[in-house]
Amino acid sequence: MNETAKEKWGYKMDVGIVGGGAIGLLFASYLKRAGHMVTIYTKRAEQAMKLTGEGLVFHRGGSVEKYHVEAFPIEQIREHELLIIAVKQYQLEDLSPYLKSVKKPESTLLYLQNGMGHVKGFKENGWHAIVAGVVEHGAKRMSDHEIVQTGFGKTKISLVTGQSDLHRWTATLHNKGFPIEIKDNWHEMLSRKLVVNCAINPLTAIFKVPNGELLYNDHFQNLMKKIVKEATFLLHLDEREMWDEVVAVCKYTEQNRSSMLTDIENNRKTEIEAINGFLVEKGNENNIPVPYNDFVYKSVSGMEQVGKA
Amino acid sequence: MNETAKEKWGYKMDVGIVGGGAIGLLFASYLKRAGHMVTIYTKRAEQAMKLTGEGLVFHRGGSVEKYHVEAFPIEQIREHELLIIAVKQYQLEDLSPYLKSVKKPESTLLYLQNGMGHVKGFKENGWHAIVAGVVEHGAKRMSDHEIVQTGFGKTKISLVTGQSDLHRWTATLHNKGFPIEIKDNWHEMLSRKLVVNCAINPLTAIFKVPNGELLYNDHFQNLMKKIVKEATFLLHLDEREMWDEVVAVCKYTEQNRSSMLTDIENNRKTEIEAINGFLVEKGNENNIPVPYNDFVYKSVSGMEQVGKA
Repeated sequence: MNETAKEKWGYKMDVGIVGGGAIGLLFASYLKRAGHMVTIYTKRAEQAMKLTGEGLVFHRGGSVEKYHVEAFPIEQIREHELLIIAVKQYQLEDLSPYLKSVKKPESTLLYLQNGMGHVKGFKENGWHAIVAGVVEHGAKRMSDHEIVQTGFGKTKISLVTGQSDLHRWTATLHNKGFPIEIKDNWHEMLSRKLVVNCAINPLTAIFKVPNGELLYNDHFQNLMKKIVKEATFLLHLDEREMWDEVVAVCKYTEQNRSSMLTDIENNRKTEIEAINGFLVEKGNENNIPVPYNDFVYKSVSGMEQVGKA
Repeated sequence: MNETAKEKWGYKMDVGIVGGGAIGLLFASYLKRAGHMVTIYTKRAEQAMKLTGEGLVFHRGGSVEKYHVEAFPIEQIREHELLIIAVKQYQLEDLSPYLKSVKKPESTLLYLQNGMGHVKGFKENGWHAIVAGVVEHGAKRMSDHEIVQTGFGKTKISLVTGQSDLHRWTATLHNKGFPIEIKDNWHEMLSRKLVVNCAINPLTAIFKVPNGELLYNDHFQNLMKKIVKEATFLLHLDEREMWDEVVAVCKYTEQNRSSMLTDIENNRKTEIEAINGFLVEKGNENNIPVPYNDFVYKSVSGMEQVGKA
């Protein structure tokens, strides 16, 4: 057994990761790298077998690393000190019974979803703490047990309810290429990420363009601006500041094809409901029209339907 | 020389057709079929040579007909009893000097553009009459001198200014498969066509779907409804009645790929400016927000830009 973490920090975490997608496997890789105990829970039993049998293969920069991990189908979930929820928001509902079965006053939940629809779930109590996180890394799953990190960003985390020593976490999880930043205001943190996602993701999916094109094409930039304007108004954020952030992300990721675009290209369900769907619902509740968000929400929803037909 | 028209109606028209695209060649075919004199004016001299040299080949249903036509480059335009303007709206400006040179108090102009941006040009006087028309046929140009009729509809015409005996025209132009209907109110006629086009054309171009998909996909149908709602409000048309018409056109043409979609697919300029651009401008002038029209206007404009890059 790898004792690095304990040797280094006198502290080795027992972490469960729910979700065998790109983000789940990325976190598993970095946690293994830091010497923690990692158990991955997957929807498909075959993936769990593959991960346990062949190890987790992590492509990063030019190098390849391989980690031994424990993986089980979600039905076999057990309690952990920290449980990282790395499934898409629309999969949270199916997960709910399993989470209930392992709810313990000693366990902390870390939610890594896009959007804000899952915020409702934060009200659940009985956990030691609930922490929200937003991931700015890019990662792509190559097969059931292989991922490649495609972009280097950071993870922001923020305490939602309960008590959790985020600074200790940060010290132990943090390592080269995997910075973690602690934020005071989880709602603002999620709102800001939502604004970035609500503009870039659906427009790239509709127009089938890499992120940068939204900036360099006057017409697309104008649409992006309208979407950001609506979202910042609705979420009480500073429009100008958020626009600068959206522009910065577009520039930084200009070659990237967004996850929503690749989801559409592969006829997969997207996160449109959690992102623009959330804003449309919030607009309706508050009687604030958000037609540009409504347009992309209906567009991507319609495109998902075409893909399935 | 073919005397059919004169024998039949004691009347043979001297018609000039400006534009060698699908609609120009379709009208040329039906006018020749009815025995009128037809001269086609094209932008490219090569097309004029091809038409004069090889004749106009018209595929219709299972049959092929070939007509001898006179064709010249637009620089050689001369006066005609009736001049049919069958270019795209965005080409009208370049045409203006040529039209001025053949303006005669005996000549009638028939405009066959989509949209309403060309309505400004109707104010020009010095012509015997200005007539507006909307074409509901489908036609596709196969080569410089060959077209195929892909859909059978009708042509609606309406007197805008001056005096013109539309009923005599209708009698002489009208023939099997080419019905002409006279409308009293040209503005309403163009507005109604605009409403149909503003919803179907851009959405099919954005989502790359045949017309019918807009109806059978809930989300797309909802977007179409919002666009129609804005347009009918702006143009003082009955929303319910127009919606029924849009639905009918979608059903009738469900297999068709709209001209805007094929323009985008072939990296050609579209008529977005004349259609949704007109509505956005009108909305701005009247301080009436038309976000759904604005969205498709900017989307298709942006897509044109991507195509050119």
